[in-house]
Amino acid sequence: MRTYLECIPCFLKQALFAARAATNDEKKIKEVLDRVGLLFPEIPLTSPPPETASLVYPIVREITGVLDPYKGMKEKNIREALKVYSSMKALVEAADDPLQMAVKISIAGNSIDFGANPGFDFEAEVKKAIEKDFSLTHFEAFKRRLDKARNILFLGDNAGETVFDRILIETMRKPVTYVVREKPIINDATLEDAINSGLNEVAEVIPSGCDAPGTILSRCSKNVLQAFRNSDLIISKGQGNFEGLSEEKGPIFFLLMVKCPVIARHTGLKEGELVLMQA
Amino acid sequence: MRTYLECIPCFLKQALFAARAATNDEKKIKEVLDRVGLLFPEIPLTSPPPETASLVYPIVREITGVLDPYKGMKEKNIREALKVYSSMKALVEAADDPLQMAVKISIAGNSIDFGANPGFDFEAEVKKAIEKDFSLTHFEAFKRRLDKARNILFLGDNAGETVFDRILIETMRKPVTYVVREKPIINDATLEDAINSGLNEVAEVIPSGCDAPGTILSRCSKNVLQAFRNSDLIISKGQGNFEGLSEEKGPIFFLLMVKCPVIARHTGLKEGELVLMQA
Repeated sequence: MRTYLECIPCFLKQALFAARAATNDEKKIKEVLDRVGLLFPEIPLTSPPPETASLVYPIVREITGVLDPYKGMKEKNIREALKVYSSMKALVEAADDPLQMAVKISIAGNSIDFGANPGFDFEAEVKKAIEKDFSLTHFEAFKRRLDKARNILFLGDNAGETVFDRILIETMRKPVTYVVREKPIINDATLEDAINSGLNEVAEVIPSGCDAPGTILSRCSKNVLQAFRNSDLIISKGQGNFEGLSEEKGPIFFLLMVKCPVIARHTGLKEGELVLMQA
Repeated sequence: MRTYLECIPCFLKQALFAARAATNDEKKIKEVLDRVGLLFPEIPLTSPPPETASLVYPIVREITGVLDPYKGMKEKNIREALKVYSSMKALVEAADDPLQMAVKISIAGNSIDFGANPGFDFEAEVKKAIEKDFSLTHFEAFKRRLDKARNILFLGDNAGETVFDRILIETMRKPVTYVVREKPIINDATLEDAINSGLNEVAEVIPSGCDAPGTILSRCSKNVLQAFRNSDLIISKGQGNFEGLSEEKGPIFFLLMVKCPVIARHTGLKEGELVLMQA
């Protein structure tokens, strides 16, 4: 997906939010905004938004000196998610269609996103998300594809959400390669976060090789690219991965919550909608 | 009021909105955003937000070549406001406290603001606004000040709102000097808009001498400055004027709708609140 004009003020808001997470020093935060502003002419409207995000967040790091402003938040999210792990597993086991429930839980987990949604109440949001209407039009196609799949590539998104993805992986009972971000960016899951979520017990976890908060294939490691080409099923979580992959061909299913008006307009879906959609 | 960090993404959103009002050419709109971004290092956090707005809007004009993108909207607003003029006058005449009702109507008129609120349904908003709770804690002080006043300086804000201000001026029955913006900026009222609203029949209308969408005294004409120093009562409409004058001393009463989280935090009021407050 290309960058829309509305993405540009949004990059700035994200930079402000990240800088505030890193420091209270107004001068430094202002410096971050100034530097991000100078970047605008270098953002072509043709590039996917995560590409720009990979330019914005290093500015926050460089000026504030804080490498991972969301570290504490991510750890907290994983802890909170692990607390509800058993009750989520029970929901899956009690469901008429366990796979569908596990898909819903994994998508609901995508509502945990500090990058786009600053104020956030974990338990309330997860509850609300599970009770929401899901757009699962392509669920049957997903099921068929899964039945035949010998290997699955799972592109993760946020830390915390990882715990919910683990439930889906456990329910699918197939070999899974789980891709995390190369290094800390926003609240996205890294190798450390995946391990803290127990994902290494149910999947092979590999870093993307790409420093963007989304999957931009041309910037991913050879390993990831190979897995992308050779997997029978690709599960892509969240907006960042969708933005990077929406034009790609392949057996991709996007699982995400629509979090901004731009994605809503681009997909024809509503803001807040929880969806599984086939590429 | 100084510029807060949150104002900076907001300037960019406003530039995007104004550029969209002026043109459909994505490249030109992108150029506007690029140029506004380059401006950030020149925005000190000590300057009042309308000062920055007076740098942002000329960029939109220069790049799109459209001098007054809101001209059509302003004319429509004035026409719509004139349509409800008689029924608003009737409300004032039927009220137990006609002055209080006229104050409410004038503040309600401030909800007509394209600068901060893109999507807008005139009739619905006016109705809703009149029925809302008002914070009129300083209304008695205002009344006392008005009783003794021999001359009033009235600092206008948006086109359309001007018609509602006319009702307040007619109800106050005192000599009024009404200040409008020097030249078109956002949907703010200019001399032409004031005349189209019939304000010249009930007040002396003068332009501010300042190209900002708010009253920054140091940039106003001598006439306005003199009127500011010599008036017994100053009525300041809207956020832009508040932002410029919040630190000034004088018999100022601010009549406005709180339209953004920054003003809400600065004043301790709630977003959406309709207030009359003494300086």
